[in-house]
Amino acid sequence: MTSAPGTRAYRRLSVEERRSQLLVAALSLFAHRAPEEVSLDDVAEAAGVSRPLVYRYFPGGKQQLYEAALRSAADELEKCFAEPQEGPLSGRLTRALDRYLGFVDQHDMGFAALLQGGSVVETSRTTSIVDGVRRAAAEHILSHLAVADPGPRLRMTVRMWITAVEAASLIWLDEDKKPPLDELRDGLVDQFMAVLTATAGRDPQTAGAVRHALALETPDGPVGRLARLVLPVVSDAAHLF
Amino acid sequence: MTSAPGTRAYRRLSVEERRSQLLVAALSLFAHRAPEEVSLDDVAEAAGVSRPLVYRYFPGGKQQLYEAALRSAADELEKCFAEPQEGPLSGRLTRALDRYLGFVDQHDMGFAALLQGGSVVETSRTTSIVDGVRRAAAEHILSHLAVADPGPRLRMTVRMWITAVEAASLIWLDEDKKPPLDELRDGLVDQFMAVLTATAGRDPQTAGAVRHALALETPDGPVGRLARLVLPVVSDAAHLF
Repeated sequence: MTSAPGTRAYRRLSVEERRSQLLVAALSLFAHRAPEEVSLDDVAEAAGVSRPLVYRYFPGGKQQLYEAALRSAADELEKCFAEPQEGPLSGRLTRALDRYLGFVDQHDMGFAALLQGGSVVETSRTTSIVDGVRRAAAEHILSHLAVADPGPRLRMTVRMWITAVEAASLIWLDEDKKPPLDELRDGLVDQFMAVLTATAGRDPQTAGAVRHALALETPDGPVGRLARLVLPVVSDAAHLF
Repeated sequence: MTSAPGTRAYRRLSVEERRSQLLVAALSLFAHRAPEEVSLDDVAEAAGVSRPLVYRYFPGGKQQLYEAALRSAADELEKCFAEPQEGPLSGRLTRALDRYLGFVDQHDMGFAALLQGGSVVETSRTTSIVDGVRRAAAEHILSHLAVADPGPRLRMTVRMWITAVEAASLIWLDEDKKPPLDELRDGLVDQFMAVLTATAGRDPQTAGAVRHALALETPDGPVGRLARLVLPVVSDAAHLF
């Protein structure tokens, strides 16, 4: 007995492959519509399978599928943060931000829905998935600052910057992806160095991290550029010293 | 015919006063519990009135009461931002932040619930109330920067800082209100000046605003202190210039 090519493909996938296929279909739908506007029928249609098959994999229905898709997106997002601890800090941050912003660009409205949590199916579990990504981002950054036991001021500075990056991503999506991604990314790196330096003024631990980071920077890197651009702006403020 | 004192007080309030009394009772409940954990019975009990009376004022029930309480909290929050355009920018920001952080301190969990929107009764209307407060905060700050027509980089910097302040407020509540409010507030002022200065490096309009602001600062003010504290940290970075 022969079957149509579509049906053969349908049969050939392993459980893991099928599950993954359904998550990809769900993610791409959530990427362009709010979760409450995505139905299980939409997911089945996008994956080219039947509704009962979606239910077989996600018997909890839409809520379970949404959480699994969110979990899968969160895993993908966390992978963006991995970066070897080598070279100037600004370069590491630039590369991680390029991957993160690439994710934002690719998932656009799904990323917005994910972060804003403005969903009828939001639960404490979905909130904790998003918070887990934030925590992972903070831990990655703190590990790059080479500080043994980061104190509250340094931690708060890093967490505030992460929230500011999320806000910038949402504003960027809202403003039709302007400015270009590399300009946005350079601005975020600048802001990170700026807030870290401001905190360093009052916190010896952060001051140590900044000195260590600055020693690794080069004149033609982002921080060298920032330093030379900012100097003329603040040089009129001699009356403050 | 005489009535008990409680009943007399009950009768004497005008419609506006009664409404306001119910909102105050609702706000104080939402301040300590998530909206989904507050019932109309709780509000009636806290206000010392009957449940039907609450329904007479808010026939839409809990959703309408929640939105009205949110609207009232938003109005109160927006009042914190008003500040005369006089004296150094850091002083204006310090005073506005003191009022804002006082609001956060007073409403604690209600503030968190308000911002996180992690509520079963969240709607696009409640989201737009919170967004309205953010927009109002941004417009206030931009007006103090004395820039005629703020461009996208300056706007984004201000909006990112506002989100970072929200994050700091939530972290502060989450960490049992540590550090002391004045230390938190000084750190937020420092970060504002830092991100504004970083943006000034690439944006002539922001550079103009920073020069103007720095000219008004005094050596014993927050920005003078920040400048003197940061100088030794960055002075090792001569290789970047």
